[in-house]
Amino acid sequence: MQTGLIKINTNESPFSPTPAVQRAIRDAVNSDLRLYPDPNAFLLRQAISQAHGVNIDEVFVGNGSDEVLGHAISALMDHGAPVLLPDITYGFYQIWCALYGIDFKLIPLNADFDIETDDYRQAAGGIIIANPNAPTGRFLSVQQITGLLELHPGRVLIVDEAYGDFCDQSAVQLIQHFPNLLVTRTFSKSRALAGMRIGYALGQKPLIEGLERVKGCFTPYPVDRLAQIAGAAAIADPNYREQIDAIVSERIRLSDTLLALGFDVVPSSANFILTRHPKLPGIDLYNALRRRDILVRHFSTPRLQTYIRITVGTTAQMGQLAKTLTDLLF
Amino acid sequence: MQTGLIKINTNESPFSPTPAVQRAIRDAVNSDLRLYPDPNAFLLRQAISQAHGVNIDEVFVGNGSDEVLGHAISALMDHGAPVLLPDITYGFYQIWCALYGIDFKLIPLNADFDIETDDYRQAAGGIIIANPNAPTGRFLSVQQITGLLELHPGRVLIVDEAYGDFCDQSAVQLIQHFPNLLVTRTFSKSRALAGMRIGYALGQKPLIEGLERVKGCFTPYPVDRLAQIAGAAAIADPNYREQIDAIVSERIRLSDTLLALGFDVVPSSANFILTRHPKLPGIDLYNALRRRDILVRHFSTPRLQTYIRITVGTTAQMGQLAKTLTDLLF
Repeated sequence: MQTGLIKINTNESPFSPTPAVQRAIRDAVNSDLRLYPDPNAFLLRQAISQAHGVNIDEVFVGNGSDEVLGHAISALMDHGAPVLLPDITYGFYQIWCALYGIDFKLIPLNADFDIETDDYRQAAGGIIIANPNAPTGRFLSVQQITGLLELHPGRVLIVDEAYGDFCDQSAVQLIQHFPNLLVTRTFSKSRALAGMRIGYALGQKPLIEGLERVKGCFTPYPVDRLAQIAGAAAIADPNYREQIDAIVSERIRLSDTLLALGFDVVPSSANFILTRHPKLPGIDLYNALRRRDILVRHFSTPRLQTYIRITVGTTAQMGQLAKTLTDLLF
Repeated sequence: MQTGLIKINTNESPFSPTPAVQRAIRDAVNSDLRLYPDPNAFLLRQAISQAHGVNIDEVFVGNGSDEVLGHAISALMDHGAPVLLPDITYGFYQIWCALYGIDFKLIPLNADFDIETDDYRQAAGGIIIANPNAPTGRFLSVQQITGLLELHPGRVLIVDEAYGDFCDQSAVQLIQHFPNLLVTRTFSKSRALAGMRIGYALGQKPLIEGLERVKGCFTPYPVDRLAQIAGAAAIADPNYREQIDAIVSERIRLSDTLLALGFDVVPSSANFILTRHPKLPGIDLYNALRRRDILVRHFSTPRLQTYIRITVGTTAQMGQLAKTLTDLLF
């Protein structure tokens, strides 16, 4: 990484994996690396099941939640009707649909960038949402998710909770009640392990078995030995709570700073903020910050092009950002 | 792993990753794990390109050669005619074909378990062979591979060299002459890194671009940070030569031992031997060894059911195997 660059463009954690996690990985660098990993990733799935209070056969793991989502879209969507997606969300959902020849339909977010659950009351081969959504940071309550699940009892709803640790509700509690719910999660954000590629899905056993069938036809060992160990250590480590709380506090401070500088701020429940300034178009803000060694994200899609998305970083990084924005604007 | 068990059933290396490789991995367990890996795996691809004397844009890497092969079958086979495969080979080729809806046709090995290249002189959407083949260990020369490439200039030949380091020829030298050749390789066997899931493909740029397109629609970060570092260190480390030579020497000794005990031995160019004994059916041999804490592989397919496959291990492991077989037979 470029020295001095403040990289707040891909929603990684600004913190390190905890000492216990780093130690667990280092201790596993030994002769056993010559052996294939456990294809069933038992210890990792057990740790995840304990952390969420679900059964181990309700847990599926993969090489990042990207692989998990790819398998889920391949295995669990009904081809009789289009899969429904928000028009603004994680861009890969429609790429996977296209890869697997699955018809999809984009449902516009409302003017506040919120998902209107009533708009999903139409023929659906399944629904995929990110919650909190990206890059908006907007959040559906557990009641709203329940509403979506009840709209299409025979179709699978995938709730991608990549940013779930940064808000105070999760759809995981609904799994026991809804056989059509799959929740995906990742170690790449709140667990500071984007470099290790670990993701998972939680759902009732028949959905997990569907994922296992696709995985079994693709690669039997998707999660390597060190990733299995890192994930098991990370999900069991209470010290991540402090990192997550710090990110949430910093998000609130960043939001206040941006508002004080005259920005429009989309209220966020994730580890990033979508924001725009009435005086500076998004691309100009992006370029001005880039020239000052601050890398944020700009989207060229029409509804987002006036905005930038800022990943919440450390207090020092956010201080530098605030100072730079102030210099730019005044 | 069970203590005392001699695990010679999945063709892993009996040796450890070298000290330099283990050190490189340990040194990379740091704060950077919070960041996504390089999606282009530049340093790993550069190390592979240097080791093989090819251009970096002729190298594709993935999460084990399983993922690489899956993408290759999805991206590079022509759907106008069946893909040709040996009837006895790595079992996943036909599973990937089925997963991607690709018609395939099994071409029987001859009575000596050899691939008869003339049998591939028929309509083909592509050809996939393992060389050396598994679980036979039989090998096609570079001339024979050239013959296959010339049979179908407009179709891709995938040569899976998972065991290529254990024999003295490779099809990699043919890449510059044949735009229809893709060679896949792995770090799971000769490099003692099955636990890290690293595989790669070598071929002319248009084939590699085809693989990149599929990868780009599936997951942008298939190879994690530690795997990229492990692979780059391993392919550049000359100390693996000693491990590979030891395995080849031990294979020759094991073959002699088996012949002396009255076994039929299929001559092998890999790190395993397919063998049978006229007095003991394969499943009985498998079970008798299993009861004595030696785990070999048995296949239930008709042409292989009288055989067992033994992974070449350390001198000590092979000594224990020889002693146990002698006890069983005399």
